[in-house]
Amino acid sequence: MNANYLAGPVLVIGTGLLGASAAMGLRACGIEVGLRDASPTALRIAEDLGAGVACAPGDGFEPELVIVATPPDVVAPVVSAALREFPAAAVIDIASVKQSILAALLDDASLSPAELARYVGAHPMAGRELSGPAAARGALFTSAPWVVVPHEGSSAHAVRLAKAAGADLGASVIQMDARSHDEAVALVSHFPQVASSLLASRLRGAPGSALALAGNGLRDTTRIAASDPRLWIQILSHNAPQVLPILEGLRGDLDRIIATLKDPAAPGAALDIAELMGEGNAGAARIPGKHGAPPQSFATVSVIVDDRPGQIAKLLTEIGEAGINLEDLRMEHSAGHQVGLVDVQVLPGRRDELVAALTALNWKVVQ
Amino acid sequence: MNANYLAGPVLVIGTGLLGASAAMGLRACGIEVGLRDASPTALRIAEDLGAGVACAPGDGFEPELVIVATPPDVVAPVVSAALREFPAAAVIDIASVKQSILAALLDDASLSPAELARYVGAHPMAGRELSGPAAARGALFTSAPWVVVPHEGSSAHAVRLAKAAGADLGASVIQMDARSHDEAVALVSHFPQVASSLLASRLRGAPGSALALAGNGLRDTTRIAASDPRLWIQILSHNAPQVLPILEGLRGDLDRIIATLKDPAAPGAALDIAELMGEGNAGAARIPGKHGAPPQSFATVSVIVDDRPGQIAKLLTEIGEAGINLEDLRMEHSAGHQVGLVDVQVLPGRRDELVAALTALNWKVVQ
Repeated sequence: MNANYLAGPVLVIGTGLLGASAAMGLRACGIEVGLRDASPTALRIAEDLGAGVACAPGDGFEPELVIVATPPDVVAPVVSAALREFPAAAVIDIASVKQSILAALLDDASLSPAELARYVGAHPMAGRELSGPAAARGALFTSAPWVVVPHEGSSAHAVRLAKAAGADLGASVIQMDARSHDEAVALVSHFPQVASSLLASRLRGAPGSALALAGNGLRDTTRIAASDPRLWIQILSHNAPQVLPILEGLRGDLDRIIATLKDPAAPGAALDIAELMGEGNAGAARIPGKHGAPPQSFATVSVIVDDRPGQIAKLLTEIGEAGINLEDLRMEHSAGHQVGLVDVQVLPGRRDELVAALTALNWKVVQ
Repeated sequence: MNANYLAGPVLVIGTGLLGASAAMGLRACGIEVGLRDASPTALRIAEDLGAGVACAPGDGFEPELVIVATPPDVVAPVVSAALREFPAAAVIDIASVKQSILAALLDDASLSPAELARYVGAHPMAGRELSGPAAARGALFTSAPWVVVPHEGSSAHAVRLAKAAGADLGASVIQMDARSHDEAVALVSHFPQVASSLLASRLRGAPGSALALAGNGLRDTTRIAASDPRLWIQILSHNAPQVLPILEGLRGDLDRIIATLKDPAAPGAALDIAELMGEGNAGAARIPGKHGAPPQSFATVSVIVDDRPGQIAKLLTEIGEAGINLEDLRMEHSAGHQVGLVDVQVLPGRRDELVAALTALNWKVVQ
C-alpha cells in the first residue's frame, strides 16, 4: 500500500487499458475513484475489476483530479470540457504525445487562462500488447516513468497533483517540457514501434518452414508489432515531425549496409559491417537499467518440465512449500517439443535456496 | 536423461559456447566425448565443466561422430581435415550458414566423394548473448530447432547420426536443404539482427533524459543488438545474397512511411499508416506458437486471483485436476495490490470447459 499523495476523489474518463489500470491502482491506495466511458461495456468491466464507481454528469461527484485517458484524437476536447465542468479540479491527460494536445488547448477560445492553468499533461510510459479494461492491472505503472509535462501557464497546484497521481501509482515521476518529451518518445517509443512493424511485415510472405525456425531474437524484435494500428495512426500522425529525422537516419544506415552486402568480399566490407554492428552495441549499451525494483532485479532459475497437465502447478506448489515467494514466471515457447523450460523469478537472495530445494525434489534445474 | 540415439564416442572440435554446450549435453546422456580447441584455455574450461576429455591427433580416439563447432570462417578446412583424419566417422558442423560451407567442401580437391558422403551440415537454433565455454550449459539445445542439412551426396548413415546428435541433446530435429535453410535464417535470424543493430545505433547521440524513458518495447527490440560483431561479420558476409533482398524490401517500406509522415494530414495518409502497421500485425501473427502450433491457435482465459502466496499454484493445480493442459501462462506480479490477472492459454476446444470448471470452483474469470 502506497502512502497517499492525493486526497481524492479522482475521476477517470476513459476506462481502457491505461485508464482502468490507473483507476485500479488508485483504488488500491484507498482513493475514491469515479469512472466514465463512452462504452457502457468497458465501464461495466472496469467496475467489475474494482476500478471504481461509474458516475455521470450532474450527480454531484466533485473530483480533486480528473485523469483523461481517452483515445488521443479526442483528448483535447475532453480535457477542455472537464476544465469547465469541474472548476475546482486539476485536469491531466495521459496520452503519448503532448505538443499537439497543448497546442489545441491553447487555441481553444472557450478556455480562459485561469482554466488552462489547471491543465497539466502527463504520460505514463507503460502499456501492454493487449488493450481494453480486461487487460488492466493496478500495478501497470509500478516503477515505470510517469512524465509530467506542465505548460508555461500551469499552476503549481495542478503540477503537484499531476505528480502525486504518479507517485501514488508507484511510478517514477519525471518532469519535462512538451517538446523534449515528444522528441524523447519519438526515439524510445515511436521509432522502435515503426521499426518493429516494418520488420514483422517482411514475414508475411515467408514459407512456414522458415518461420518454424523462429527463435527469441525474432520474437523479441517483433513483439510490439502486434500493437493496435488505430492507436498508432494517431500517435504517429501527431508526432511525425519528431519521428521523421530518426527514420531518415535509419534509412542512411540501411543504404550503407545494403551497399556493403552487395559486395561483402570488397576491401573494407568486413570493417564496415563491424562498424555498423559496433554502433548497435554502443546504442544498446546506452539504455539505462529499469527504475525502482523491476523484474530485471530478480534472479531467474530455469527449470525443465514435462509438458503434462499439472506439472507447472506441482512446481509452483513445491516452490510455495519451500517458503519462497514467486516474483514472476515465464514459460518458454518451444516448437514441436514436449519438454519445456519454465523461468522462475525470485529475489536474488533466495536463488541458491530455491535451486537447492528444487534439485532435492528432483526437478531439473538449468544452471 | 535422454534415451541415447548415438552410441559414441563423439569428438567436439571447438569448445566455445555451442561446442561446449553440445559436449556437456552429450556427456549428460552418458556418451563419451573428446574435446579439441585451438585455445588451451577454452579447452581447460570445457574440461573443468565436465564437457569431456581433451584429446589430440594420434592418441587413438576413434569417434563415431565429429562435431565441428569452430568459428564459421574456418569450418570448411576443419571439416575437410576431420573427414580425412577419421575415415569411419560422420562429420557435422554447426555453423549458422550452410551453402558457403558446402560450396567450399565441394570445391575441395583433397576430398573424395566417399569422404564427402560422411559430411552433413547442421544448425542448432540456440544461443545466448554470452559467449565462450564458461557460458555453456548442457540444456542449451532443449526444445530448440536442430536443423539437419544434408547435401546430395550425404550418406543415410551420416544423416542419421546428425539427427541422433540433435535428438540426444533434446532438440527438435528438422531437415532442410542448404538453400532453404540459408533463406530461412536470413529472414528469422540475420535480418532481425541487422534491424535491431540499426535501430539501437540511433540511440548513440540521444540525450540521457530521453533514454531514461526507455521501456520494454525499446529493450526488447534492441536486446540482440548487444551481440558480438566479430561473429556477425562472418555470418552476414556468408549469407549476404539471402539477406539483401529482405533489407531491400525493408527499404521500400521505410521510404513509404517516410513519405507518408512528411504530410500526415494528406488524404490517405492515415490509411497508409494503418496499412503499414496492419502488415506488421499480419507478419507478427505468422510466428508459430508453442509446439510449432499455428499462431494464435490457443484460447486465452483471464482469471482474477488474489495476490496471496499459493493462489497461482492452486489455480494451476485445479486446471490440472480438470484434466486440461496448460499451453502457456502469463502473470503480472502486482506487489502491494490486492488482485491480479493471470492469462491462461489452452487449446481452443478446451476453452469453454475450462471457463465452466473455474467458474464452478469460484474463480473469477474475465470474459
